[in-house]
Amino acid sequence: MPKLDALVFDAYGTLYDVHSVTAKAEGFFPGKGGVLSQLWRTKQLEYTWLRSLMGTYENFNVVTEAALRYACASLKLDASATQISALLAQYVLLDTFPEVKAALARLKSRHKLAILSNGALDTLGTLVRNSGLAPLLDATISVDSLRVFKPAMRVYQLAVDQLGVPTNRVGFVSSNCWDAIAAKTFGFTVFWINRLDAPVDLHGAAPDHVIRTLDDIEARL
Amino acid sequence: MPKLDALVFDAYGTLYDVHSVTAKAEGFFPGKGGVLSQLWRTKQLEYTWLRSLMGTYENFNVVTEAALRYACASLKLDASATQISALLAQYVLLDTFPEVKAALARLKSRHKLAILSNGALDTLGTLVRNSGLAPLLDATISVDSLRVFKPAMRVYQLAVDQLGVPTNRVGFVSSNCWDAIAAKTFGFTVFWINRLDAPVDLHGAAPDHVIRTLDDIEARL
Repeated sequence: MPKLDALVFDAYGTLYDVHSVTAKAEGFFPGKGGVLSQLWRTKQLEYTWLRSLMGTYENFNVVTEAALRYACASLKLDASATQISALLAQYVLLDTFPEVKAALARLKSRHKLAILSNGALDTLGTLVRNSGLAPLLDATISVDSLRVFKPAMRVYQLAVDQLGVPTNRVGFVSSNCWDAIAAKTFGFTVFWINRLDAPVDLHGAAPDHVIRTLDDIEARL
Repeated sequence: MPKLDALVFDAYGTLYDVHSVTAKAEGFFPGKGGVLSQLWRTKQLEYTWLRSLMGTYENFNVVTEAALRYACASLKLDASATQISALLAQYVLLDTFPEVKAALARLKSRHKLAILSNGALDTLGTLVRNSGLAPLLDATISVDSLRVFKPAMRVYQLAVDQLGVPTNRVGFVSSNCWDAIAAKTFGFTVFWINRLDAPVDLHGAAPDHVIRTLDDIEARL
């Protein structure tokens, strides 16, 4: 494997636990917080893919709110405007996974580090600052300038262009297997963080490395 | 609403019950047939969206087999090659929903009728013949010539081109809400068959008509 000059990370689900909304959701809808969080996330991704395919992009904030409203309707939860706002507000307060900060701090000494995310630039920037990751990153890159979501191939080109690192010198890290497969198809060296012991997806080239947490990357470099 | 000269139907999930594979799956994997069928379908759609976005089209037979293998792995079902083949073979033997044949026979007297489907042309054609729908249809149109799946907008243009009917004279019928939303975005008059009493999806223009079965269409024409 060529030496990697940059490591590019997916944000939601990879560095940040999207299910850190569960406690808030459980407070509002006892017994339903977990299933609401799961369905919200499923619909959020589905809406990004569908809007991208239809050519009707709206940013991730719009998609995230629509997905939450759908999830509440599907579960017959009568969410108030205040509750919807409070749940959406969690998206700038998501927890990092436990190992993230220390792992990035170690990796930073030898690699450019960046986020490449579906997130809207304002929300994503606020999340990165709130979580304390900002000083560890060389760039926080959003799809928003392209008006298309992952896994459109031109999204991955953004990282090459903004970091000034050749494709074959970029390592891409995602917990979303479909994102990892797309990045591999694009030409990156790919690390799939398989946090949930899921099977690999079968719609494209398999990731180069399957790891359990960010801590496992260094041994593969 | 303008007079509709043609009615164009989605196939899988709309005219044909994709979950008619459940009995066969249950025979192989007792207690797991329903969940296998559900996960198989979910992954099948996901893979069509992801491959379309990545620009790595493979036909629906390929996607359907990959989705089945993923679903079996996810559920830790050790499916044999014979079982995989037998389940895939169901895709040319799917049941029509109970009202379909009689409803199409009535609608045929006043409209051109066609299928517009993600299905590979060979498999789809065999299914249409096996199910007895072939004599009722003026066209069976597959996305395969375009090498992209729904909801890419150019898929819906295929129906306009092949039927020779203007966009605003086409009624589009689907049980898949995302397909209905895309067809509405394209410009068709859309009937969403909401067989499962689901909430409407919120990532685009709402369907014109929400109905329960094909039998409800005539009252809206």
